[in-house]
Amino acid sequence: MDMPLPLTEQDADALIGDMGRRARDAARVLAGAPTARKAEALRGSAALLRERSAPILSANAADMARADASGMTAAMKDRLQLDEERLEGVASALEAVAGLDDPVGGLVDERTRPNGLVLRRVRVPLGVVGIIYESRPNVTADAGALALMAGNAAVLRGGSEARASNAAIHAALADGIEGAGLPRDAVQMIPTTDRAAVGALLRAQGLVDIIVPRGGKGLVARVQDEARVPVLAHLDGINHSFVHASADKSMAEAIVVNAKLRRTGVCGATETLLIDRTYPHGAALVAALADAGCVLRGDAEAQVLDPRITAASDEDWDTEYLDAICSVRIVGGVDGAIAHIAAHASHHTDAIIAEDEAAAARFLGEVDSAIVMWNASTQFADGGEFGLGAEIGISTGRLHARGPVALEGLTTYKWQVLGTGQIRP
Amino acid sequence: MDMPLPLTEQDADALIGDMGRRARDAARVLAGAPTARKAEALRGSAALLRERSAPILSANAADMARADASGMTAAMKDRLQLDEERLEGVASALEAVAGLDDPVGGLVDERTRPNGLVLRRVRVPLGVVGIIYESRPNVTADAGALALMAGNAAVLRGGSEARASNAAIHAALADGIEGAGLPRDAVQMIPTTDRAAVGALLRAQGLVDIIVPRGGKGLVARVQDEARVPVLAHLDGINHSFVHASADKSMAEAIVVNAKLRRTGVCGATETLLIDRTYPHGAALVAALADAGCVLRGDAEAQVLDPRITAASDEDWDTEYLDAICSVRIVGGVDGAIAHIAAHASHHTDAIIAEDEAAAARFLGEVDSAIVMWNASTQFADGGEFGLGAEIGISTGRLHARGPVALEGLTTYKWQVLGTGQIRP
Repeated sequence: MDMPLPLTEQDADALIGDMGRRARDAARVLAGAPTARKAEALRGSAALLRERSAPILSANAADMARADASGMTAAMKDRLQLDEERLEGVASALEAVAGLDDPVGGLVDERTRPNGLVLRRVRVPLGVVGIIYESRPNVTADAGALALMAGNAAVLRGGSEARASNAAIHAALADGIEGAGLPRDAVQMIPTTDRAAVGALLRAQGLVDIIVPRGGKGLVARVQDEARVPVLAHLDGINHSFVHASADKSMAEAIVVNAKLRRTGVCGATETLLIDRTYPHGAALVAALADAGCVLRGDAEAQVLDPRITAASDEDWDTEYLDAICSVRIVGGVDGAIAHIAAHASHHTDAIIAEDEAAAARFLGEVDSAIVMWNASTQFADGGEFGLGAEIGISTGRLHARGPVALEGLTTYKWQVLGTGQIRP
Repeated sequence: MDMPLPLTEQDADALIGDMGRRARDAARVLAGAPTARKAEALRGSAALLRERSAPILSANAADMARADASGMTAAMKDRLQLDEERLEGVASALEAVAGLDDPVGGLVDERTRPNGLVLRRVRVPLGVVGIIYESRPNVTADAGALALMAGNAAVLRGGSEARASNAAIHAALADGIEGAGLPRDAVQMIPTTDRAAVGALLRAQGLVDIIVPRGGKGLVARVQDEARVPVLAHLDGINHSFVHASADKSMAEAIVVNAKLRRTGVCGATETLLIDRTYPHGAALVAALADAGCVLRGDAEAQVLDPRITAASDEDWDTEYLDAICSVRIVGGVDGAIAHIAAHASHHTDAIIAEDEAAAARFLGEVDSAIVMWNASTQFADGGEFGLGAEIGISTGRLHARGPVALEGLTTYKWQVLGTGQIRP
């Protein structure tokens, strides 16, 4: 499956150039493909994944055997491993995407000018989406499906550790697409895991319209650093839950424990708890976290609340633990919370727990993050929970799309101007 | 006004770093500034421009004297020169921006989830906008005003040839902003024309959210090539007018002559005329252009239509003349037009002239340009003509904003999630 290694930069550019041109041609067809045709392609792919579960699982077993031999960590192996149930999950996720509303062709807005020109903005696909990911082979299907359903061609580059699994899943996807009469090149997989190909993809301006990195911090940082193509990504989720003086005691405890501990490894997990200096139940709040098994690191004022809170260092305020660890700081009201967040947040998701509506309105208005929440757990930061059906990622950038990105975020618009012979004076 | 030259890369980064941080602080205030306050700032700036017309025009005279001494071309000097009337135009443009609808705070959409969470997308400013421009001193006011009205802070970098004019106009703008109680740092001008500062601005990721280059192809190309910050720009306007077999003879002639010749130097001017092979009035059409003084370069089939058409080279199809020159090609129906445009367009503005609605619908659907037109002159490609009030530029990129970009294009959104204590299961 792999091309002979190593690839020169020139070879890599030639490979990506050829794939990019074929993707552009496919994208032209996909842009006009009816919703039903795209859905049929995804349903067909799902059926093929089920039909081929034995060979796909045996490809995955080969990846797992290599993983064992290379001494991969248990957590990474868990991400890599497929079984019947997980594969069924991949197939039904394709069917779920097939059932989503198709944004393509939707009218964004329309206006008529005094000279009679009618101006419409109409949703169209972005074009060619490059997706770079690690370990989890389900991304091959998920990301490819989302790109396709929004009318885009996709160029996928999975991790070398999952190459057999990815190739098997990709083949089912491509066969399903072809079976529905759409171009097989709609979803291509880079046929080498040589890193030079990633470099070529990242500089393929004009061939690739957007790059979505899905993986750990190292991958995302490399992509953001090297890419000349626009990137849709988030590097960190340093999220805050702020308990205002007016917060309801039991609501605050339930939300904070959930926000921090429901799953500690997700990007929407709270990393820092901010407590209003005049909130009367601070001790009970931190005790709820500590009792639930959370390690707490606080400033001097917070440490007074509970002996289990050790001293936080400056670094703690800028750390995404992704673990059962929480930094705790006492702040002065909404202003103190906003100031701390402005200095330390990664602009992902930040929440206020408060009964005072004016305090909540200020927080929602002034905290400059992709997602701001009032009386809810930051763990809701997820495209599925937002009702978007699925997500290709959560963007902490400011341009184009912010927060959970699903089908609409994989489209753009064009202006259609309808005249009756107007010329410009 | 200028700092001692030359600036080291380190000095430039320090300078831009400091300006960027002050811009970010100002942006935080502007994000919450009421519409009336921003409008007051712009009206106050307009009044100051009028009050200070004598010193501003004498600053401009100093720039003009240097331009004379350096042997600047007449066209460039025309762009640089101000007079009472042009300065009044700059002032009234500020007042026009002050009267535009403020996009900030607008509700993009809202949904309620089965668990009761209310999700709203609300328009917020982009943040900090970097604007790099040449010659025309009015851009100092125009671009600064648009950025401000959309709630952004701006960092301006004008051309060295206009530095005295720009400084005088910028001072009026900053004084007007301060006079309305908004931070003076809302619109800053880089206090040196050393090119190292441009480089620092282009790599100021995290400090500057978007760069808008306004100027010639050389400037835009350099910005697109070097920038690590996202760029909103167009490099070329290789626009097509396609006359379909069904086109009305007199409408086609009026539109094509206007699209090509009304003003040949604007980015919305048509550069290539595509004529359907079965359009019966091709000779009259090209004669109308030639009679109006247009130089015509055509393929072999087009040359048959009129002896004044000389042979086009391959290069002509990819050339933005910005002059009274037009390339002419005979194509086979809508398919031929779409194929030529896919191969040669710069994705700016392309038009079809046709009575056949099905042909027009195919063209509008399948031509992948920021603006597609039916029975109208491509010269309408302009934010003012689109009813946007003003434009900061026309984007030929696919992400974030396409076509004319005005206030809305200088905003993004955030998600506000309103709960009543929901935690994620």
